[in-house]
Amino acid sequence: MNFSSKLLEQAVEAFATLPSIGKKTALRLVLHLLQEEPDAVAHFTETIDKLKKHIKNCQTCHNLSDADICVICSDIHRNKEMVCVVESIRDVMAIENTGQYRGVYHVLGGIIKPIEGVGPDQLNIESLIQRVEAGTVKEIVMAISPTIEGETTTFYISKQLKKYDIQISTIARGVSFGGELQYADELTLGRSIVARTPYQISQK
Amino acid sequence: MNFSSKLLEQAVEAFATLPSIGKKTALRLVLHLLQEEPDAVAHFTETIDKLKKHIKNCQTCHNLSDADICVICSDIHRNKEMVCVVESIRDVMAIENTGQYRGVYHVLGGIIKPIEGVGPDQLNIESLIQRVEAGTVKEIVMAISPTIEGETTTFYISKQLKKYDIQISTIARGVSFGGELQYADELTLGRSIVARTPYQISQK
Repeated sequence: MNFSSKLLEQAVEAFATLPSIGKKTALRLVLHLLQEEPDAVAHFTETIDKLKKHIKNCQTCHNLSDADICVICSDIHRNKEMVCVVESIRDVMAIENTGQYRGVYHVLGGIIKPIEGVGPDQLNIESLIQRVEAGTVKEIVMAISPTIEGETTTFYISKQLKKYDIQISTIARGVSFGGELQYADELTLGRSIVARTPYQISQK
Repeated sequence: MNFSSKLLEQAVEAFATLPSIGKKTALRLVLHLLQEEPDAVAHFTETIDKLKKHIKNCQTCHNLSDADICVICSDIHRNKEMVCVVESIRDVMAIENTGQYRGVYHVLGGIIKPIEGVGPDQLNIESLIQRVEAGTVKEIVMAISPTIEGETTTFYISKQLKKYDIQISTIARGVSFGGELQYADELTLGRSIVARTPYQISQK
């Protein structure tokens, strides 16, 4: 691309470092910002600066938080006896969006990936064990993606927690609601037959 | 979306104001920035602030520029007798990328769109006439999109410039290179037959 302005070129390159933003999209975003009011652009950059400077990880569950303890951990209505272990902050948001879970979380910050050099020590596993040792926790719900690495992580953590008097469960796996059987992969379909559940006729 | 952090929510909303960026993409971009080094994020926001504060429009052609006169207008190797009239900065970049044009430009800043309230007065037409009156210009190349509004703009400007002793041309229209005739629209195909050019056998 030929830029008549260095300032423009630098801004486009800055945007193009973001994931899934190519140079053409970056140019469109930058030209959009140039048309905006100066105050709006200042607000945009300030918001990002503030986020980067002031955001914290919750000292209990490692979720992103404005304070030392996140809004979920400090909510007195949440069940502190149940801890859902997830890979990332995005998983917390996905589960929160369902509105079905009233316990608290523990964000691992990744899963065990030996090929990428991520071992158990790089994850927030030690702090999970400390939470269990503290005594309040009665159930750990492992909600980690059912990939090979995810299953390894679930297995590793379950083994570490075996000696404590708590229940360990994993989220249910099976055919998606609304999914057609013929399109389900064999592993999922096979497991969902093995792990079949009693059919309950709902009573209205 | 359920955000555990106000700072996060504000940053996601700021990104989501950009064109073609939805909330999910915005979240991915913000989480990417959170993983970056603080210096990289500071550089990102500084670049945008600097752009917004210091960028100018070239006093001659209205192209984006770091100085009062843009690099194209101040280039002594460019032909100042030929002025290419375009709608926007993006068109300047597109033509520059072809490497085929050695004249200078005039950026209108839009085209005449009565429905959206854009009349000739909102465009940089007066300054184009002044450039012509100054005497150096010998040819005006109208390079405006061949839409109804674009054709109207081309017609309006050509009429304004008729009284001056200059040549006015428009970029050639026809079937795209690599395009198949059967897929060309009727208007383009019809015009390209009417405006046929003598076939030249290249001599190597």
